[in-house]
Amino acid sequence: MKGVSQDILEELGVQILLGNTYHLYLRPGVEQVRQLGGLHRFMAWPRAILTDSGGFQVFSLNELRQVTEEGVRFRSHLDGSSHFFTPESAMAAQIGLGADIIMAFDECTEHPAERERMRESMELTLRWAERSKKYFEAHKNEAPWSTDHVGPDAPVRTGERELAGAVERGIAERRSAGEVRAPAPTWSGAAQALFGIVQGGMDHALRRESAERTIKIGFSGYAIGGLSVGEPRALTREVVEATLEHLPKDKPRYLMGVGTPEEIVEYAGLGVDMMDCVLPTRAARHGLLFTSEGRVSIKQARYAGDQGPLDANCGCRVCQRYSRAYLRHLYAANEVLAQVLNTVHNLSFYLDTMRSVRHSIALGNKVQLFPGEQSQAKP
Amino acid sequence: MKGVSQDILEELGVQILLGNTYHLYLRPGVEQVRQLGGLHRFMAWPRAILTDSGGFQVFSLNELRQVTEEGVRFRSHLDGSSHFFTPESAMAAQIGLGADIIMAFDECTEHPAERERMRESMELTLRWAERSKKYFEAHKNEAPWSTDHVGPDAPVRTGERELAGAVERGIAERRSAGEVRAPAPTWSGAAQALFGIVQGGMDHALRRESAERTIKIGFSGYAIGGLSVGEPRALTREVVEATLEHLPKDKPRYLMGVGTPEEIVEYAGLGVDMMDCVLPTRAARHGLLFTSEGRVSIKQARYAGDQGPLDANCGCRVCQRYSRAYLRHLYAANEVLAQVLNTVHNLSFYLDTMRSVRHSIALGNKVQLFPGEQSQAKP
Repeated sequence: MKGVSQDILEELGVQILLGNTYHLYLRPGVEQVRQLGGLHRFMAWPRAILTDSGGFQVFSLNELRQVTEEGVRFRSHLDGSSHFFTPESAMAAQIGLGADIIMAFDECTEHPAERERMRESMELTLRWAERSKKYFEAHKNEAPWSTDHVGPDAPVRTGERELAGAVERGIAERRSAGEVRAPAPTWSGAAQALFGIVQGGMDHALRRESAERTIKIGFSGYAIGGLSVGEPRALTREVVEATLEHLPKDKPRYLMGVGTPEEIVEYAGLGVDMMDCVLPTRAARHGLLFTSEGRVSIKQARYAGDQGPLDANCGCRVCQRYSRAYLRHLYAANEVLAQVLNTVHNLSFYLDTMRSVRHSIALGNKVQLFPGEQSQAKP
Repeated sequence: MKGVSQDILEELGVQILLGNTYHLYLRPGVEQVRQLGGLHRFMAWPRAILTDSGGFQVFSLNELRQVTEEGVRFRSHLDGSSHFFTPESAMAAQIGLGADIIMAFDECTEHPAERERMRESMELTLRWAERSKKYFEAHKNEAPWSTDHVGPDAPVRTGERELAGAVERGIAERRSAGEVRAPAPTWSGAAQALFGIVQGGMDHALRRESAERTIKIGFSGYAIGGLSVGEPRALTREVVEATLEHLPKDKPRYLMGVGTPEEIVEYAGLGVDMMDCVLPTRAARHGLLFTSEGRVSIKQARYAGDQGPLDANCGCRVCQRYSRAYLRHLYAANEVLAQVLNTVHNLSFYLDTMRSVRHSIALGNKVQLFPGEQSQAKP
């Protein structure tokens, strides 16, 4: 998490981090991380980690990639060197990194796309999902923390397998709210959890087909991929709804690449369990801060003399200590500390949002925005 | 402190921070800080702050400055705009910032310099010291935290005036060790403490004259300026020794711009009470880390697989949590977190060094390096 140390993340109540397989594959390298005991031990993070398959990152390298049935050839953004990801190599990489949740290798369909292209891309993702599952089943015991193949001094996992706990709590909450009637999942904690990814572009029928055939392959959880790729937000919501209804309620449902605080609340209300997004951290680095009274662009001169806290309703260490004037100065002076403090606050705001969502679910209430956020949503 | 938040600094045991008058004068501006209640309140730092006079920073702007009897004209490194510092304006700036210790405006003599140039520069500094003292005495009650001239909602100083405590403890320790026989200083805590700066180049007789005439003007503490300007280290030590013997033992003695951990121990042993240096933080940003077993250049490939802590003898949050391999990765990947964690460790090492120095003084022992550092000093 750029600029924020792990102990601060723990203090904020972060339960799970997302690691980028593409970046870690390039630097420091999967084998290096594996030999160091896996990502948990390497980065000293005992709580849950999810790694993406690298597919989306590679998809973002527009000019530098070439997709075939076998996999994706791409060039490193660091040095231009050529690499090839396949479902098998993406699984091997994620097993080597040793995250708690790993993702099947998929092709993220571009938007806009013709229906035929959407179908072809969906079919390719389904074939890759099969191959991902097959490789995973054959090698799932090779995660660095579950074997001794790194020698007699093999490092062991620090901490508990909190992932299972965190996600299961969410499901238990929905169960207690009467939404889930299937039996609790029985993750043993002995292996990683492999999630499948539903594609199908913006076509509802293809999304349904993708969901059903992905479920048939069988995964520990299901992600909705291929959204937040430039389409209008109303369309995103339509596709999410059309996909969610075909996903099992007793498995984690993960919406990839979303979103704003409002979107998180909205999609949690629809039944999404997990989301990921660069927004809180990237926006923080650009001085855009989320508060209970709306967005604050801290770079603005109007804050130069503002002695109030960034968000009077926030209990984070930034809001408890610093004024808007100081945060504005740090940003204007291009201080690294601006990035650090802004990120801590935005993470705190997002985590507060999720705590509020979970609280609403536990109470059986409708999931909705904070009172402060509601006022912001008014015209 | 670049990249490190104030709560971490408090946790590390930092007692005093140095603020750069030149930088704060340019951005966000002295008047802005004054209106916000002074530097303590602006940056949410209740412990002690020292500001430099801006003289040394301006001295560093070789190409952009012009010295006259009246003061120094210089161009901003930010936008090239023209500014003029005088002893009076430097005092006004430091009073407006409201630090606990402020420095007389001096000319830092370049090295090497002819003896005539050293004398002229020293005489100028003495005239400026007189003017600094005169302006300070007339305006010392205008510090933002000692008046109500910022309106009815005038902010007050947070926290205690810990500076007096911190420096007095040091003097008390030397007193208990039999080195100081004069009565304890009686800082009231009602005004800032103005320190004079001894110049005189590398000439012992001029240093003595500068010390004696600066003392005659009368300050709350005395700094040795004009060193660490490119001269050999043996020469630095000679000049420090030649100057120290003419400075009162019952006032804080401050060696500016020094140094390495070894130098800090060495000069503390000679009777220096205060030092300041960019080394621990700047070195950290370049991956150079101080440890009980010597310097570690964390960028080196040899640490890529090193699972040990940076310094097994260090209790800081970095050494307690992360491996050298992880720190090396963060540095190699150009992560901001590398700079943050490296700075926290180096600060911790320096503060441990100072705690060790104080402990030795309290015990009446010779001030010397840690056992680990001694082994490092062997050939």
